[in-house]
Amino acid sequence: MEKYEELFARIKEKAKLIDEKIFELIPEKDPRVLYEAARHYPLAGGKRVRPFVVLTSTEAVGGDPLRAIYPAVAIELIHNYSLVHDDIMDMDETRRGKPTVHRIWGVNMAILAGDLLFSKAFEAVARAEIPPEKKARVLEVIVKASNELCEGQARDLEFEKKSTVTIEEYMEMISGKTGALFEASAKVGGIIGTDNEEYIKALSSWGRNVGIAFQIWDDVLDLIADEKKLGKPVGSDIRKGKKTLIVAHFFENADEKDKQRFLKIFGKYAGDVKGRGIIEEDIKSDVMEAIDLLKKYGSIDYAAEIAKDMIKKANEALRILPKSKARMDLELLAKFIVEREY
Amino acid sequence: MEKYEELFARIKEKAKLIDEKIFELIPEKDPRVLYEAARHYPLAGGKRVRPFVVLTSTEAVGGDPLRAIYPAVAIELIHNYSLVHDDIMDMDETRRGKPTVHRIWGVNMAILAGDLLFSKAFEAVARAEIPPEKKARVLEVIVKASNELCEGQARDLEFEKKSTVTIEEYMEMISGKTGALFEASAKVGGIIGTDNEEYIKALSSWGRNVGIAFQIWDDVLDLIADEKKLGKPVGSDIRKGKKTLIVAHFFENADEKDKQRFLKIFGKYAGDVKGRGIIEEDIKSDVMEAIDLLKKYGSIDYAAEIAKDMIKKANEALRILPKSKARMDLELLAKFIVEREY
Repeated sequence: MEKYEELFARIKEKAKLIDEKIFELIPEKDPRVLYEAARHYPLAGGKRVRPFVVLTSTEAVGGDPLRAIYPAVAIELIHNYSLVHDDIMDMDETRRGKPTVHRIWGVNMAILAGDLLFSKAFEAVARAEIPPEKKARVLEVIVKASNELCEGQARDLEFEKKSTVTIEEYMEMISGKTGALFEASAKVGGIIGTDNEEYIKALSSWGRNVGIAFQIWDDVLDLIADEKKLGKPVGSDIRKGKKTLIVAHFFENADEKDKQRFLKIFGKYAGDVKGRGIIEEDIKSDVMEAIDLLKKYGSIDYAAEIAKDMIKKANEALRILPKSKARMDLELLAKFIVEREY
Repeated sequence: MEKYEELFARIKEKAKLIDEKIFELIPEKDPRVLYEAARHYPLAGGKRVRPFVVLTSTEAVGGDPLRAIYPAVAIELIHNYSLVHDDIMDMDETRRGKPTVHRIWGVNMAILAGDLLFSKAFEAVARAEIPPEKKARVLEVIVKASNELCEGQARDLEFEKKSTVTIEEYMEMISGKTGALFEASAKVGGIIGTDNEEYIKALSSWGRNVGIAFQIWDDVLDLIADEKKLGKPVGSDIRKGKKTLIVAHFFENADEKDKQRFLKIFGKYAGDVKGRGIIEEDIKSDVMEAIDLLKKYGSIDYAAEIAKDMIKKANEALRILPKSKARMDLELLAKFIVEREY
């Protein structure tokens, strides 16, 4: 992974510019509790990958990345608002190694903190120092993404009520839930940096594919990664019953007997396991059985291949852009996404 | 109230234009459940007072109200998003005579439906057919209001933890919670219709005052109105322990003994009263006692006077605008707010 070290350094460098503006928009102010709750996730970390994509996309089409800072902040704030609200819906307990907003401040203040982050995202758009025509277009792109984000999350909530999902349903959900905001990141960066519609289109396509591949690879890692590197038990998605591309592929391909075996394990260990007196050894053996079933039908490899193909396709789209350090960074970032082990 | 009949007819007329665009933005589409939940409050009614203020403000400064339709829709959608989320926080069961969104679709989908309405509000801004410079400014004004809305609601949530509030704290809360969006309505209308900053300032001031007075008068009505006209029992705010300007005035003026008597009743009947085996007769007699205490210190009259003064001040600010039918409609609407009996 050494070849990525320099990229990471540049991501960090740009994150500083972003964080400055984030905390300018959500300072420590009254009503204290609201602003503290809103600052919690941005303060807890996050790599600012989406803002990096915005700024680097602007550079890649020959624009001035400083012009793109506020729009990049807008996208990061939308990402954070969606985390706050999604964590409520998923009843998640921790995020970035810290208790979730609703666990610290309660559901009501968490709803409101998410709302404030959402509102502040549009304040960031309003503050952008770009020509008003560009600002109007940036607003359009961000709004489209945030609509899609809601739609993707709604589809995901609906998945909980179904025992199985198809590959098509999965791709539709994930395209909204993680593809849309990545696409918007690259597209907004492009719009700020150029009037060349071909370039903007290429960046959009790159972003959508990278965003989707990012999530798929996350789901692959959950099943094959080293526990220590991943920082959570292997197969945690199987415990929770999370419907991923891997699982969708399995549902479409497994025979009835194997599907029934899988469904007996899938989601069985969601929520408070200790309180139900279940032994960790039993969970592990069940999870291993489920992973073996997924492997039997090549479902993990299938998803890994899809992710890699999407990254290849993404970077191919970028080739119409002039060669530059910025374009190379985008390509490198995309490659890293499907090579990382954590 | 006959003198208002024509005004109501014009509000209805303009509401038609607004509703057409609202349901164009949130049509019946997939994911079905999300869009149904988002359409629930807009479909359940509401007078579209804020959009009326936007369109009429544009007219009052000599502009074309048709240009203001999408921004007016944006403000109505922000109002509706805040209702959906506030109802979750307040655990309210009904709204506009129908079950609240979270009661029908659950808290998770209600959070998401609110988020979508919020997002669609900014889509409405993006769609506005106004020069990009004006659009950028409209965005700024709406963002500022939606920030303030969150802040006001946060202060209101904090009130729940306090036994008393001061008049100053109350005014700060209500200025955000209901003043901000009314101000934005009038201001956005002004910005679209004119470049005369004095007119825009006058409309802003009118809107803020009218918004605050609207809420104060609502709280007065809760204590003095005819139950049949109001559609809910007298003193429901006392049952719930809602901290209004009236109550804040009482807290600042009553002697210790009366405060203690009041606090024994205030908020005692929040939530599920029937389940606790409490008799309606006992509640009524307690509420009457509390109202008598408020009357003893002139707290209801105080609040009513404040509301009327604010309306007077609001309409005085409008006098710098040229005389017109539109200006008269705004003045009439303001007067109605503190004359209505329901």
